[in-house]
Amino acid sequence: MAYNLLKGKKGIIFGALDNKSIAWKVAERAHEEGAEFTLSNTMTALRFGQIDQLAEKCGAEVIPADATNVKDLENVFGRSMEILNGKVDFVLHSIGMSLNVRKKRVYNDLDYNFLNKTLDISAISFHKLLQTAYRMNAINSWGSVVALSYIAAQRTLYGYNDMADAKSLLESIARSFGYIYGREHQVRINTISQSPTLTTAGSGVKGVSGLLDFTERMSPLGNADADECANYCVVMFSDLTRKVTMQNLFHDGGFSNMGMSLKAMKMYNKSLEDPEVDGVE
Amino acid sequence: MAYNLLKGKKGIIFGALDNKSIAWKVAERAHEEGAEFTLSNTMTALRFGQIDQLAEKCGAEVIPADATNVKDLENVFGRSMEILNGKVDFVLHSIGMSLNVRKKRVYNDLDYNFLNKTLDISAISFHKLLQTAYRMNAINSWGSVVALSYIAAQRTLYGYNDMADAKSLLESIARSFGYIYGREHQVRINTISQSPTLTTAGSGVKGVSGLLDFTERMSPLGNADADECANYCVVMFSDLTRKVTMQNLFHDGGFSNMGMSLKAMKMYNKSLEDPEVDGVE
Amino acid sequence: MAYNLLKGKKGIIFGALDNKSIAWKVAERAHEEGAEFTLSNTMTALRFGQIDQLAEKCGAEVIPADATNVKDLENVFGRSMEILNGKVDFVLHSIGMSLNVRKKRVYNDLDYNFLNKTLDISAISFHKLLQTAYRMNAINSWGSVVALSYIAAQRTLYGYNDMADAKSLLESIARSFGYIYGREHQVRINTISQSPTLTTAGSGVKGVSGLLDFTERMSPLGNADADECANYCVVMFSDLTRKVTMQNLFHDGGFSNMGMSLKAMKMYNKSLEDPEVDGVE
Amino acid sequence: MAYNLLKGKKGIIFGALDNKSIAWKVAERAHEEGAEFTLSNTMTALRFGQIDQLAEKCGAEVIPADATNVKDLENVFGRSMEILNGKVDFVLHSIGMSLNVRKKRVYNDLDYNFLNKTLDISAISFHKLLQTAYRMNAINSWGSVVALSYIAAQRTLYGYNDMADAKSLLESIARSFGYIYGREHQVRINTISQSPTLTTAGSGVKGVSGLLDFTERMSPLGNADADECANYCVVMFSDLTRKVTMQNLFHDGGFSNMGMSLKAMKMYNKSLEDPEVDGVE
Repeated sequence: MAYNLLKGKKGIIFGALDNKSIAWKVAERAHEEGAEFTLSNTMTALRFGQIDQLAEKCGAEVIPADATNVKDLENVFGRSMEILNGKVDFVLHSIGMSLNVRKKRVYNDLDYNFLNKTLDISAISFHKLLQTAYRMNAINSWGSVVALSYIAAQRTLYGYNDMADAKSLLESIARSFGYIYGREHQVRINTISQSPTLTTAGSGVKGVSGLLDFTERMSPLGNADADECANYCVVMFSDLTRKVTMQNLFHDGGFSNMGMSLKAMKMYNKSLEDPEVDGVE
Repeated sequence: MAYNLLKGKKGIIFGALDNKSIAWKVAERAHEEGAEFTLSNTMTALRFGQIDQLAEKCGAEVIPADATNVKDLENVFGRSMEILNGKVDFVLHSIGMSLNVRKKRVYNDLDYNFLNKTLDISAISFHKLLQTAYRMNAINSWGSVVALSYIAAQRTLYGYNDMADAKSLLESIARSFGYIYGREHQVRINTISQSPTLTTAGSGVKGVSGLLDFTERMSPLGNADADECANYCVVMFSDLTRKVTMQNLFHDGGFSNMGMSLKAMKMYNKSLEDPEVDGVE
Repeated sequence: MAYNLLKGKKGIIFGALDNKSIAWKVAERAHEEGAEFTLSNTMTALRFGQIDQLAEKCGAEVIPADATNVKDLENVFGRSMEILNGKVDFVLHSIGMSLNVRKKRVYNDLDYNFLNKTLDISAISFHKLLQTAYRMNAINSWGSVVALSYIAAQRTLYGYNDMADAKSLLESIARSFGYIYGREHQVRINTISQSPTLTTAGSGVKGVSGLLDFTERMSPLGNADADECANYCVVMFSDLTRKVTMQNLFHDGGFSNMGMSLKAMKMYNKSLEDPEVDGVE
Repeated sequence: MAYNLLKGKKGIIFGALDNKSIAWKVAERAHEEGAEFTLSNTMTALRFGQIDQLAEKCGAEVIPADATNVKDLENVFGRSMEILNGKVDFVLHSIGMSLNVRKKRVYNDLDYNFLNKTLDISAISFHKLLQTAYRMNAINSWGSVVALSYIAAQRTLYGYNDMADAKSLLESIARSFGYIYGREHQVRINTISQSPTLTTAGSGVKGVSGLLDFTERMSPLGNADADECANYCVVMFSDLTRKVTMQNLFHDGGFSNMGMSLKAMKMYNKSLEDPEVDGVE
């Protein structure tokens, strides 16, 4: 199943850690579809992840960068243009982290330094990436930039904490910069709002297994997995989606437009019949 | 708790059947807040409901009408203006019915005559009501029209069937006519998207008790009840919300913006631990 | 620019009239991408359009049908499965018409027989198509159905009239049926909300040239044209978007998420400076 | 026009500067409706604004605070509970500022220290306010918190710059905290998305007069002004809207759901006919 959809296209993929990462799958699929690209992640991720395997498989160079650091981003774009011999056509931003989540600070007891870090890493890094690319004129006309998001940007999920706010900010940045980058250089910017996905990064979120079961049963097509997300990213990088911009695209088996499914209701109702549970708390 | 919010205001309330009806509660509250109004419902509803009690309590006249019949609607507006001695300031549309639901025709096996009836009764009647009022110039400047809706207009709920489509159409009509009626006569038109509410009409929807438990636990403030909905309608009829128009206003304890709550997840997880349920179907 | 994205796939395309039609372009692109399909339109459209040219070019058979007639739809699906030798993988619904628009009945003076026709032709036909396919089990697992929509489903545009309500209903049907068809047969159903496009059908809408200029300047990437829309449809029919369902996908150069652009504001402000225009009416 | 809607209620109003401020109008109206409250703003605002007049008129004490400083917020809630003799029932957050806008740093050339300040002042301050109130248990059950927002949170407007992102973040915080505060203490949290309003703060936004003319003509009821916004805030603080939470409520004369109005199109078309303007750039 390869179509040469990205033949001749050049790109940068941020955020591949190990073979559970969505960014990892995107790299594999982009490679199959004929793209050349560089990979970037933090020094820590490079040390603890397996990105070298991926780099070898895809013939890609790895450029370490802290995506909250503009100098580092300049280096990523500069080096990428050297390596790839020209401007890039696509960029994937798959970056997010919350110290409040990690350190178990609940949303009504946030540490504000941690919050600033959450926003900087998970959302403002996207603005920095775009502003750097814009200044360096590093993306070709009709290029495509995708950032990965989650429905917590629209709806509150218990335990998702300040990552929800970060995703809202991320999606807003996609719109705001999408307008300018579109107007000036015909570059499109979108977010893909993916089903909850069991990546190494995502597994820290509280109670994620119950949630995955719920969203699986709520979604008529079931949860979308990382491989399927990679396919959708490829499509968004291809020339077949040139006029799609400033959008948040749900890739979730239908979850986002479900109110209640038969399967989830059946499962939920089992608890209701359970004698130990006594009415609404 | 009466504020004279509707003192001197005149109105028409469609859809009161018995004391579980939202329209019934709206009538009671509008009366307490100083409004004068007429009541309207179908001949059948008048026969089987208890609307005469309500009429007496509120000093309101009852005008029978099939809201899908323009002649009947002309009579309602004509008579109301006579009785109330002038144009009206507010109208409530609380009308909806699906024969497909009643006759247990599932959504993938709809009877199209029934579907036409569902749309005519539950949505197009709202256009007919507005067009009739517009032609007869029956609503004062800065008047307010509210129709009751449900989140099925945005998200699919198992068993809600063609009423979901009817509510989408209803909300669209509120926007489309809201533009014209606002531009020409400063009349505002909104829908209130209410929590699932156990009215005599609503109780036919499949599996409604499990759903009510779920929405109760999902909503941080719990489900909104009919009395609370009546308060919100009063507010929307008052002079304090004059610039709100073409909106769909969720009155649902927060449900519409929830992805997953602690309480609902706990209840759901109980089933997961249950040995009889074995994984995702 | 052909990728074999639809190689081995079979489909049905409703609504091609002449070479300005979006459905026409979709047929051309689907053919280039390796699909086999049948074409369907009304007898009147077949007589006045040029669909035979398209059929020849694509090696496709034409099956006349009134899409509001279930018998006709049964014939389309039945014949298509014979001709294509099996179930179909994709269906395009590009059907819409308003007699109120044609006969210049404004939205506050609708003819209700015309409104019923608008809804039947432009929205309910989609339910009939899906219900027919579902009953005949005519769509393969992981098949994809797309209907064309317009932003009037969300926001009121002067002159778009009852087509706005029809598009809201259409999008609701896509969600409602998308849930069931996804759950039971892994078939996805989406709408594409396309920029205003100068098709033979669309040119009847009031004041469309001013609107096109406005949306062109508002959209950072400019209006999407019919060729680009065809590319997007191909993508939605391909195996790369399998978990996207129940969505309304804006294909509009960014218009849907714009509040005001520099270019549109500049143009608008020119009028403000014009001495003949004196303040807000 | 006073209804005693807030009789016996206590509150805190952040952000009144001078008599053009929405917060100023809210204070006046809350006073008329029988509320007691304190006022808070920054030292700078207290020095340059006219808040003492307002304080005198409303019998309110002024408590200076930098809303990005948790200690200051603790003081505001602590002092308010002393002065008002108990917990508060409502809070208004009308706080926003962008140094990038002030210093004319465009969105593709943001200063990131300024961006951090924009987010801290205009959005994170809302979290700090809520977290402080929550920790101090300073808001009564069924209390109501409102923050003022703008449609730039959903749609990009030329020149609104990083305030758009701040408003998105603000609305997300309202949802995220609304869930917890609702669940634990029945406190509701909403944002009101107000028409562009010529306040002293708002007048810095680029090209605001052309935009105001456009939104006035686009909105069927015209732009909502500060007085009308104050009425809407009063309603949201009253006991009549108890089950509305986590919502973003558009108060904009219908603008948010308009695609194109007759009046705006007419004005726009005048430019099109102008010989000096030659087609789409």
